[in-house]
Amino acid sequence: MSPVPVAQEKNTSSAVASCSRASCAGEMVTTQEMDFKPVSGIRLGTAAAGIKYPNRNDLVVIEMAPGSSCAAVFTSNAFCAAPVVVAREHLAETDPRYLLINSGNANAGTGNGGMAVCNATCTALAAEVGCSADEVLPFSTGVIGETLPLDRLTAALPTAVSGLDENGWPNAAAAIMTTDTVPKLASRRIDVAGTSITVTGMAKGSGMIRPDMATMLAYVATDAKVDPGLLHQCLEYAVAPSFNSITVDGDTSTNDACVLMASGANSAVVITEPDAAYTALCEAVLEVCMELARAIVKDGEGATKLVEILVEGAVDSAEARKVAYTIAHSPLVKTALFASDPNWGRILAAVGRAGVEQLDIDGVRIWLGDVCIVRDGGRAPDYTEQAGQAVMDLGEIAIRVELNRGSVATRVLTCDLSYDYVKINAEYRT
Amino acid sequence: MSPVPVAQEKNTSSAVASCSRASCAGEMVTTQEMDFKPVSGIRLGTAAAGIKYPNRNDLVVIEMAPGSSCAAVFTSNAFCAAPVVVAREHLAETDPRYLLINSGNANAGTGNGGMAVCNATCTALAAEVGCSADEVLPFSTGVIGETLPLDRLTAALPTAVSGLDENGWPNAAAAIMTTDTVPKLASRRIDVAGTSITVTGMAKGSGMIRPDMATMLAYVATDAKVDPGLLHQCLEYAVAPSFNSITVDGDTSTNDACVLMASGANSAVVITEPDAAYTALCEAVLEVCMELARAIVKDGEGATKLVEILVEGAVDSAEARKVAYTIAHSPLVKTALFASDPNWGRILAAVGRAGVEQLDIDGVRIWLGDVCIVRDGGRAPDYTEQAGQAVMDLGEIAIRVELNRGSVATRVLTCDLSYDYVKINAEYRT
Repeated sequence: MSPVPVAQEKNTSSAVASCSRASCAGEMVTTQEMDFKPVSGIRLGTAAAGIKYPNRNDLVVIEMAPGSSCAAVFTSNAFCAAPVVVAREHLAETDPRYLLINSGNANAGTGNGGMAVCNATCTALAAEVGCSADEVLPFSTGVIGETLPLDRLTAALPTAVSGLDENGWPNAAAAIMTTDTVPKLASRRIDVAGTSITVTGMAKGSGMIRPDMATMLAYVATDAKVDPGLLHQCLEYAVAPSFNSITVDGDTSTNDACVLMASGANSAVVITEPDAAYTALCEAVLEVCMELARAIVKDGEGATKLVEILVEGAVDSAEARKVAYTIAHSPLVKTALFASDPNWGRILAAVGRAGVEQLDIDGVRIWLGDVCIVRDGGRAPDYTEQAGQAVMDLGEIAIRVELNRGSVATRVLTCDLSYDYVKINAEYRT
Repeated sequence: MSPVPVAQEKNTSSAVASCSRASCAGEMVTTQEMDFKPVSGIRLGTAAAGIKYPNRNDLVVIEMAPGSSCAAVFTSNAFCAAPVVVAREHLAETDPRYLLINSGNANAGTGNGGMAVCNATCTALAAEVGCSADEVLPFSTGVIGETLPLDRLTAALPTAVSGLDENGWPNAAAAIMTTDTVPKLASRRIDVAGTSITVTGMAKGSGMIRPDMATMLAYVATDAKVDPGLLHQCLEYAVAPSFNSITVDGDTSTNDACVLMASGANSAVVITEPDAAYTALCEAVLEVCMELARAIVKDGEGATKLVEILVEGAVDSAEARKVAYTIAHSPLVKTALFASDPNWGRILAAVGRAGVEQLDIDGVRIWLGDVCIVRDGGRAPDYTEQAGQAVMDLGEIAIRVELNRGSVATRVLTCDLSYDYVKINAEYRT
């Protein structure tokens, strides 16, 4: 039940200061120390195709045992990438057996040519493993608008396939990184029906992070056997408060996808109705997704602070999310967080401009950690700069807003806006 | 009819690189070279009250001749500042004779205490000039959440009042600056009804800029006599495409206000109906507002590029604005602009996530300057990196999006996101 330490081990306040993004620098990421639990029936293989980065793995094949079920959600960006279009089609047609993932090139904004290349990669993997092309779901992440190098990708497929292994998670988590500084893996083991099942997931993501009905690339698997409809419900349940409640920069990617696989290799657990075993599975999947989502924000481009924004007392969920995201996306709030400056007036201004109809500002209360900063329409009378400063000096900061209008709450995770965010994104293509 | 050069004279690509914001450094801003046209019946006086900044003017009094009319629009931020509340009340009660403006302190988020101080400043100015307190409209700009120093402000009032002068515009434009690097003034002189009338305006604003139904502080005046209802219509006409179509960081201020004054000192022009003279006046006011709005974005915190975003072919104005602001607020687009990187995939991704229902991406076209970058769902076949780079190297960049859904267009002005934006806002209160 213990969380995998890898995703949290980054010292964010110093690690990003030098902007030494291993993935950008083309260095091989060390994965031997990563803790995780393999999932029976799910094998992962990795290879270096040289798609963009030299000297590192950038291609992953995931194999699901026959009889597995699989659910996926995708980006809501209208300019979704070729692999998103193809994966959606294939998923609607048949039960997938393989996932094919590359980093370094998003195959987005590539028109008909991009679709042709994407279909060709599926056909190539199908030929290599002996399945049909529509049993392959393709995924790409990286720079938008460049042609995916088909020859280099297909040339690396035999290496990835021959290396398929249930212990392949750490290498795969490293291979899907782009501007990430750390691979992100999470595992849970739960007891159901007298046996133990595993839920393990990996994710990548660091910038262009504001998932919407989907997420940055994330892959979660269990060895339970799960009815496909229930598996999809489980995924949606887990994605809403995790990947769909984080933001680094408000930019929703063209390639976001999250996949939940159930291999059924543990034949003692067969879930066909929403029973206690299903509930336990959903909670474990949720925990894995929450841990990965948190790891993505912590590894946000240039991030030095992890910030949790809790909005309570809203009339409905839309209102709560509107306020939370207005704070989370405010460049002024984000730069104050970077500076550890308890400039609470910027939080107040963000709440005020969030577009809540007929907001009674005298009823609004705002806290920084446990310190009440706003009450009765202005600064809380007992607030002191020292108390605010003490919260701001922390690496993880909570902002809580009570709207005092209703009973709905929401929680959003974000990070600060630093020089390095600008640096990373100004230099991304150079 | 020639535009005032002051607001445009800043070399944005180098001036902000050193982040030498005169107003922050407490230096006196040189105004003797500013070109403007005084408005008969409107006098401005300035003083140094030491509200926040040492060694510079931070207090302005504007006097309107008896019989003037005055229209104003204010921020839509629910947490609007005390002076916004008081100015709205006074405007509803009577015809204002004086505007009282301070920089260095926003008197926002200050609750009942802030209201009391604000009312006291109006009372003090009324006593000094011999009018009633509700004939004074108060305005404040600066840091949020600190108590406005009443004693220092009132002590400086006699100096400001004794200096009231029709030529006071340049000093006043400098006194209302906060993080601005240049004062912003614009003038037009138009011929109507056989005589010549003047429209002159000033504005301040550099960060927390995303006016919504109002603007950062701006004051525009004419010597024509104008019916109050028509004057308000004229202001709304001019504000929509100017101040309400700019954004630096998406953060709507708590203190935004725009005032249009008509002194009636030129008795040859009396506008009481929407005739040709009124139309000519509206166009002149619009031109002045456009020039000031453009100057605000050019002087945006950390800005090195001025970016015009034109969205055409939308079903309605809301859709067009949604797309334009999604591009304008995208940190990824803004950092690419800063880097002069023709990373057009980020523009495509922003259009795709703007929330346009059932957007047919094959019909969308996007241009960088005159260079078509996106067509038929992907990169335009004839696009070259060199052509995109040539546009990106310019100091002023146009992004044009054709949605191909309807006939509505909108235009939004914004700037890039640089290291200096982070620096200015991380250090603002220190």
